[in-house]
Amino acid sequence: MLQGGYTGKILRVDLSRKEAHTEELSPEFAKGYIGGAGFGIKTLYDEVPAGADPLGPDNKLIFASGPLSGSDTPCASRMAVTSKSPLTGAVGMATTGGFFPAELKFAGYDALIVEGTAASPMYVTINDGDVQFRDAAGLWGTHTSDCQQMIKDSLKDQGYRIACIGPAGENLSRLACIINERRAAGRKGLGAVMGSKNLKAIAVRGHGEIAVADPDAYKTARSSFREHMRESPVLYSAFAKIGTPMVVDVLGAMGMLAAKNWQATGEFVPVDELGTEAGKAVTVGRNPCQGCPVACSQLKLARNAPYTGIMAEGPEFESLYSLGTQCGVDNMDAIIAADRLCDELGLDTMSAGVTIGFAMELSERGALSAIDSGDLDISFGNDRAMMALLEKMAYRDGIGDLLADGVKEAAERIGGDAAYYAMHVKGLELPAYDVRGAKAHGLNYATSYTGADHNRGYAFQEIFGIPIPKEVDRFALEGKGELCKWNQDMRTATCDCPTMCAFLLDMAVPAVAAENAAALLTSLTGVSFTAEEVFQVGERVNNLARAFNAREGFSRKDDTLPDRLMNEPLLVGGSKGHHIPQEDLDLMLDDYYTARGWDVATGTPTRAKLEELGLASVADDLGV
Amino acid sequence: MLQGGYTGKILRVDLSRKEAHTEELSPEFAKGYIGGAGFGIKTLYDEVPAGADPLGPDNKLIFASGPLSGSDTPCASRMAVTSKSPLTGAVGMATTGGFFPAELKFAGYDALIVEGTAASPMYVTINDGDVQFRDAAGLWGTHTSDCQQMIKDSLKDQGYRIACIGPAGENLSRLACIINERRAAGRKGLGAVMGSKNLKAIAVRGHGEIAVADPDAYKTARSSFREHMRESPVLYSAFAKIGTPMVVDVLGAMGMLAAKNWQATGEFVPVDELGTEAGKAVTVGRNPCQGCPVACSQLKLARNAPYTGIMAEGPEFESLYSLGTQCGVDNMDAIIAADRLCDELGLDTMSAGVTIGFAMELSERGALSAIDSGDLDISFGNDRAMMALLEKMAYRDGIGDLLADGVKEAAERIGGDAAYYAMHVKGLELPAYDVRGAKAHGLNYATSYTGADHNRGYAFQEIFGIPIPKEVDRFALEGKGELCKWNQDMRTATCDCPTMCAFLLDMAVPAVAAENAAALLTSLTGVSFTAEEVFQVGERVNNLARAFNAREGFSRKDDTLPDRLMNEPLLVGGSKGHHIPQEDLDLMLDDYYTARGWDVATGTPTRAKLEELGLASVADDLGV
Repeated sequence: MLQGGYTGKILRVDLSRKEAHTEELSPEFAKGYIGGAGFGIKTLYDEVPAGADPLGPDNKLIFASGPLSGSDTPCASRMAVTSKSPLTGAVGMATTGGFFPAELKFAGYDALIVEGTAASPMYVTINDGDVQFRDAAGLWGTHTSDCQQMIKDSLKDQGYRIACIGPAGENLSRLACIINERRAAGRKGLGAVMGSKNLKAIAVRGHGEIAVADPDAYKTARSSFREHMRESPVLYSAFAKIGTPMVVDVLGAMGMLAAKNWQATGEFVPVDELGTEAGKAVTVGRNPCQGCPVACSQLKLARNAPYTGIMAEGPEFESLYSLGTQCGVDNMDAIIAADRLCDELGLDTMSAGVTIGFAMELSERGALSAIDSGDLDISFGNDRAMMALLEKMAYRDGIGDLLADGVKEAAERIGGDAAYYAMHVKGLELPAYDVRGAKAHGLNYATSYTGADHNRGYAFQEIFGIPIPKEVDRFALEGKGELCKWNQDMRTATCDCPTMCAFLLDMAVPAVAAENAAALLTSLTGVSFTAEEVFQVGERVNNLARAFNAREGFSRKDDTLPDRLMNEPLLVGGSKGHHIPQEDLDLMLDDYYTARGWDVATGTPTRAKLEELGLASVADDLGV
Repeated sequence: MLQGGYTGKILRVDLSRKEAHTEELSPEFAKGYIGGAGFGIKTLYDEVPAGADPLGPDNKLIFASGPLSGSDTPCASRMAVTSKSPLTGAVGMATTGGFFPAELKFAGYDALIVEGTAASPMYVTINDGDVQFRDAAGLWGTHTSDCQQMIKDSLKDQGYRIACIGPAGENLSRLACIINERRAAGRKGLGAVMGSKNLKAIAVRGHGEIAVADPDAYKTARSSFREHMRESPVLYSAFAKIGTPMVVDVLGAMGMLAAKNWQATGEFVPVDELGTEAGKAVTVGRNPCQGCPVACSQLKLARNAPYTGIMAEGPEFESLYSLGTQCGVDNMDAIIAADRLCDELGLDTMSAGVTIGFAMELSERGALSAIDSGDLDISFGNDRAMMALLEKMAYRDGIGDLLADGVKEAAERIGGDAAYYAMHVKGLELPAYDVRGAKAHGLNYATSYTGADHNRGYAFQEIFGIPIPKEVDRFALEGKGELCKWNQDMRTATCDCPTMCAFLLDMAVPAVAAENAAALLTSLTGVSFTAEEVFQVGERVNNLARAFNAREGFSRKDDTLPDRLMNEPLLVGGSKGHHIPQEDLDLMLDDYYTARGWDVATGTPTRAKLEELGLASVADDLGV
């Protein structure tokens, strides 16, 4: 019997039949998967058959808040959204913050499983135990902020928290995200899954509270966690004031700020224009998630024509890259406007920007000459073209249709050597960190179960020089397999499952992340966890995700990096001379698979490892 | 002692001193002025000295909901916002709906008087009895929808209702409005008054209820009122389904839909593009005011590039004219986008659109050749230029600075014969109704205390053929003085003061409007009113407003119409051959002043009339 933290209830919603019902969450599940991404991936593995069309009725979409979400543990209003990704064909799991995750708990549910396909545009409202299927004909086509306000007004309750898609999701762009408030479950095309189900939005309102199994122990654990936060050398002193844009400065100094579609020339490093000081100058407010004392989220306002008056949450660091350096744009106002536009259209800023940068390079190389781009001058630095392309991608208008599904798909349609310039892994466009200068980070891009995803195994050791679990040389290959595994499992275990903001792992309490999670989870939920058990949940979930991908045909051959990173050493800057040739990647992969206990030839989990993790039936499924 | 309907409390806020205090509302005031516009204009007359700079610290801004507002009488969440208008120099009173008006009552106040000037950008929060003065540095420059959301997020309460200005108000455009939710106190530059006071927003949250003095009588009065609403031949059957855009069809058929800056050619009548059926095709939802069963407000969505995905409340009929026909634009999507842009910038759609149409005509006539308009092609039908000019006006950018204060000011700066093409009365740009075909409507434009304001004395008899108080010929001059007075006093008495949505007077219950108001007010408030007394409040308020204007130097000479309407008969259509030459206007003015008991030579209220209305001290002030 679950005593606290968990509501103990899963809401399952069938859009085809307009039926909702509630299922119990078992203590065994809690112990084995904690929640959040653990719940999502377990459900995905169990319920979405191999070969299912990600945009077909067999795919499911799982919104899962962890047991910490909605409690008064700081920074825990997070949620994992999981589906089979239409962008990668692999596990698509993205996390989001804001208020929706906690509200789902207040409404009485640990998770929401969406299945089937609505016959026509629909939205679902959840008000405590009351679930309604409502006509979304009038919402179809709206921007995400309008959509959210329309729903609140329509329901006559401004307190609803809403996750929705924009036009990009409706038009099945595989770069579409899910927006809740000003937050996004951004990557892997999860917005297209919602769109394919004709599901415009989910509105949640809850009035419940999160129970605590052992109040005294929980109070102690929470105090200890807060103390660890205060002890962080960067969390309140820098990160809370500047937010993620501080990484522009960090990567600029390291020669790792990717620009202009990852050309190795390194001549575009606009730290003065896009970094910390530039960010401060345009910041007009904060936008913290529920229960967050850090409030890293910045609201930024453009003050110069033609973007005057446009405000965005962010642009976060990754958007400063994707809509900035990647496209050769160093106009902060343009990036603010593009960021907001992406949020309104429901486009992933990262994949969308990377795709536009890709188009810009191809255009400059003449490879788009056969393609009608109207009167657009698609070249690096043209922010007006960037804005226009974002619109075209969301509406699949002209050349936007070619780009709406990301670089991998576009490169295949363009042909020639376009694939060489397509910066992705498994179809997921690369995040900002030029991993030629950070090998474990690169290894994570190659091996993450979601594709090139900095959020599944962030090598903060290499980026910030934090010596936990040990000191590392970012250029070295040695030990990076083990480190990558640790980062992936720790992130999953302490952030994606409980759920908890990833920044707290990266910047505050990495040394004791598992201990903190164990103490908080045990006291809050009544399910006993050691730090080792918490960490092992991370490993279990990563193995299960890998098994899902293996079942879909993924193997070692897919654990790769774009050719450019293998072939073109950086020419200048703090990572000058570095790249990741195939032999280096192979060496790290060997180490990684070995550290994971996976078959080194195929990269598939072994029976031994799966049995060790209690996943014997998965071994049966995989025939290993 | 006030028993119900009224909270009995006025909140007075001094921005200079950051002080707030509460004053009592007296039964004498209730009996004499009811509330809303009555309260606003009485306060303006008593407290704002003659010659005060409308954008200076001596001007005040009064937000007054009437006693019906916040009650369960339908359609009563209305509020009068009153100030000395920076656009006209006369009384600036505009009404708005939505939720703010009722929320102010729930917070415990009948009215809010804002005085002084904040030293730096500020916003005021009112949570029941708690009033706070807060720094608005981060809100300054934001669009109105962002501003409202930022405040709700910042206050951690999504239930706040917020009235705010956009960049236009900050930049003191005399066309700036005040936006609450998606509603506007649109005209007379009230947003510039807020801007001049450095007041970005007022956020109100209330948890109180409206008391009822005589529940049984009130229930009867309310039932009767609802029955009258149901009996209306148009309210639920047509108006509730189509909203104000149905007037496009009506005026098109009458040859009274002004277009292209009121040229008499009449060749631009885009009823198919902008009328009822076109409106239905783009309507995606409703946006009713608090407590409104009619829900005339339509949400409309643009679905064609380059405006795809832009949604607006409206465009209401007047915006279909000002941003449509007046500018030669028949692209519904462009008008939706322009309407939304105006709302975000905090620009009055009507005055802004009329001003752009004025610029388009001057440009086509070559009168703007000496003025740098960048690369804009300012000509009728160019919707992209219209969008660009709206931005430029709000930010006073280039030619936008010339246009930011409306046609009267722009014509003076341009010189030559520009004034001939400036369509305004007393500085307020004309509403859509081409009054060459509706004489009482024209007389109201000429005489309304706010300038050319269709909302202060709407001649529904001429527009809709409603024979109340009697049947009229819209082309006739006879009896229009009396009719205009009746319309002005009835509107003020039954809508602007109690407060009540004006559409209910125009379209539902004109025959019994005063009787309904008397029954509702008496039973709700405990202050006894006959229908005659209600009507007399309307007359009293109109006289007091006229006295304020007289004190500012306004007289019969200012009760005029644009030269074009006096000189150019309509060439085609249902009002072909009609205009209002000076002698016709003079004839109507004589009748009007006589009906009002005012001095016919000067148009100033006489002592006899003022004493009849209990305004002897006003007669003393005026020296009459």
